[in-house]
Amino acid sequence: MNDIEDQSIQQFLDALASKASTPGGGGAAALMGAQAAALVSMVCHLTLGKANYAAVQDDMQALLQRAESLRAELTAMMQADVTVFNQVMAAYGLAKTTDAEKAVRSAQIQHALRAATDVPLACAKACAEVVHLSRIAAEKGNSNVITDAGVAVMAAYAGLKSAALNVYINAGSIKDREFAEQRLAELAAILAGAEVASSAIYQAVQEKLSAA
Amino acid sequence: MNDIEDQSIQQFLDALASKASTPGGGGAAALMGAQAAALVSMVCHLTLGKANYAAVQDDMQALLQRAESLRAELTAMMQADVTVFNQVMAAYGLAKTTDAEKAVRSAQIQHALRAATDVPLACAKACAEVVHLSRIAAEKGNSNVITDAGVAVMAAYAGLKSAALNVYINAGSIKDREFAEQRLAELAAILAGAEVASSAIYQAVQEKLSAA
Repeated sequence: MNDIEDQSIQQFLDALASKASTPGGGGAAALMGAQAAALVSMVCHLTLGKANYAAVQDDMQALLQRAESLRAELTAMMQADVTVFNQVMAAYGLAKTTDAEKAVRSAQIQHALRAATDVPLACAKACAEVVHLSRIAAEKGNSNVITDAGVAVMAAYAGLKSAALNVYINAGSIKDREFAEQRLAELAAILAGAEVASSAIYQAVQEKLSAA
Repeated sequence: MNDIEDQSIQQFLDALASKASTPGGGGAAALMGAQAAALVSMVCHLTLGKANYAAVQDDMQALLQRAESLRAELTAMMQADVTVFNQVMAAYGLAKTTDAEKAVRSAQIQHALRAATDVPLACAKACAEVVHLSRIAAEKGNSNVITDAGVAVMAAYAGLKSAALNVYINAGSIKDREFAEQRLAELAAILAGAEVASSAIYQAVQEKLSAA
């Protein structure tokens, strides 16, 4: 099977809708983040080289570079989410007859759950950064494509909140509570910064549209 | 060029990020809605045929049917968004030297703008219905995949808010104010119903995860 990003959109949506456990919400979260980053890049491309936006050319160049880097990262996370989920399922499927088997199985499950917590946490972190980038795109980018910056912020925010659910569910099954609490605290800090920012950015875009 | 849904995810994201005006935020909005509908279907598939969920089999069958119908509708809207946007651009590109040309151009622009308002309005409407479906998935579906119902609600809500921006921008340029105001009123009603519902559904999912 190809990596997810090589599948057609129709194939991906069919697989998402099917009874197969992967791809699932984690892949959808990463795809929302990747779409958001792509829209920030689009705003940059349509601002670069425009005389009216001469003053922000350097900002747009830096913004484009960061958005493209996050887009690549988030696109790769679609496949990473499938991989870690399958590792968790494989660990649960290990033999558990003898005490030795039980110990191996339990250790493998815990190992897999850590990865299955860290992948969506990284996705949440990347999406939160895209929220921040979409604010720059909305404030400084070509105002003809401000709706695209507005869509970027909603997509990034939805990706963040979606990834958060996968952190909660996997962290909840981790026995090493120090590890789990550290991840949950990190997620809470990411969410706290992005929630207010997202609605402020969306509202600013909406107001610019009404004023136009 | 193939229809968008036949492109690979990587090709779509590359096109979204490029300086080409299409695909843009409208296509991303439809794809978020389609992902949300797909995740509702996934929850249905993983609830149907399970003995523990015998009481909700009919609900899940009906939910699946509606989610799949909306998924098809939203997937097709990705292409429809490109088509109507290109029609607006083509109309703006018409000759405008003589008065007769100006009159034809203006009429064509107005005609295209109506379609470019109605497509995202239909997208918003479909996304709002997926928000409602995701509540049923979260409340009655297999609790092992409740995070997928939670991702569905965030994706559908982001699709709705994103489509709304395209309604605002296109309705704003329509000279027939009766037409425009009627569309904006319809959108406002859709949004009013979905805003509170979305955060309530997400919060209920999050609470179920904490209680597990």
